[in-house]
Amino acid sequence: MTKITMFGKGNMGQAIGQSFEQAGNIVRYFASKDLVDDIGDIVVLAVPYQAALEIAKEQRERLTAKIVIDISNPLNFETFDELVVPSDSSAAQEIAALLPDTTVVKGFNTNFASTLSSKKLGTNHPVVVQLATDDEKAVEVIRKALEGSGLQVINAGKLKRARELEAMGFLQMTLAASEQISWNGGFGIFQ
Amino acid sequence: MTKITMFGKGNMGQAIGQSFEQAGNIVRYFASKDLVDDIGDIVVLAVPYQAALEIAKEQRERLTAKIVIDISNPLNFETFDELVVPSDSSAAQEIAALLPDTTVVKGFNTNFASTLSSKKLGTNHPVVVQLATDDEKAVEVIRKALEGSGLQVINAGKLKRARELEAMGFLQMTLAASEQISWNGGFGIFQ
Repeated sequence: MTKITMFGKGNMGQAIGQSFEQAGNIVRYFASKDLVDDIGDIVVLAVPYQAALEIAKEQRERLTAKIVIDISNPLNFETFDELVVPSDSSAAQEIAALLPDTTVVKGFNTNFASTLSSKKLGTNHPVVVQLATDDEKAVEVIRKALEGSGLQVINAGKLKRARELEAMGFLQMTLAASEQISWNGGFGIFQ
Repeated sequence: MTKITMFGKGNMGQAIGQSFEQAGNIVRYFASKDLVDDIGDIVVLAVPYQAALEIAKEQRERLTAKIVIDISNPLNFETFDELVVPSDSSAAQEIAALLPDTTVVKGFNTNFASTLSSKKLGTNHPVVVQLATDDEKAVEVIRKALEGSGLQVINAGKLKRARELEAMGFLQMTLAASEQISWNGGFGIFQ
């Protein structure tokens, strides 16, 4: 049983928080501007990229030694045609640069909220969460915390793979926005 | 019935060529150094990125007004940890810059060869080919040419989305290389 601190109560925050609850963890929800004193072992930044940066800046000490999951897809939402992070970097790496004493993990950004809630793609394909981080142990901590939730976890490599995960998340959103796929669908993983 | 010119006879070239043949097209195969005189309406560069660049440079006039599909994943195969194209660009965009009078399409790079052959992911999930190009009509030409092959086609947007498609292809290869998935699996699309 792990204590989870969720920043963000939007559809992604709710779907991820509920998944951790379904797996038997204690989940507390906060708004992005809340200063949280009793922060959990796993922190999920289920807020837009700019808000995630602000949390990292303003709560850096509180986040020391925690596992912080960045789920953002840092799109330019005006053009829906590019990302707002440097092209050789990623939101997760930018956030990690602000949190040198924190284990930053990229995750959940290649999953649409509805599939994180339903735990399936199509009629019955499992939903796999891709995680990238420089600390492999963090992947196992998160995998364990999600056991029983119905979500599966895959180790997508080092934190720098966040660049590719964010490209994939971006692409998936453009496919849905252009109605090539639905927001209940998206990319699945076949092992 | 479309005339298809395949550069490359590796496992990707064979799987893609056979798919076009299964759909009733005429497919001719060439090595990357062959100078081809009677070039088809659709040309597939099923060769490594550097070889694709060479073909673009050396056969520019022959490729005028053709549809050229770049399938490459421009990895640094020594490190398996980065791409060799500028981070704000893509192999397809670099090739397109050499071929101003050609319709360049990014495609097939998010599909592993074995799934292009078997036409399925897992027990029975359809294999979808993502295509990105600035000429939407080219997507329809390719879609039509693949009708009956068992492969489905999705319009992944403008050619600049090749950056994201190549990131996804790269990620998929790292997942297989690290045995998180098999080379018979990979990313599928749920609509």
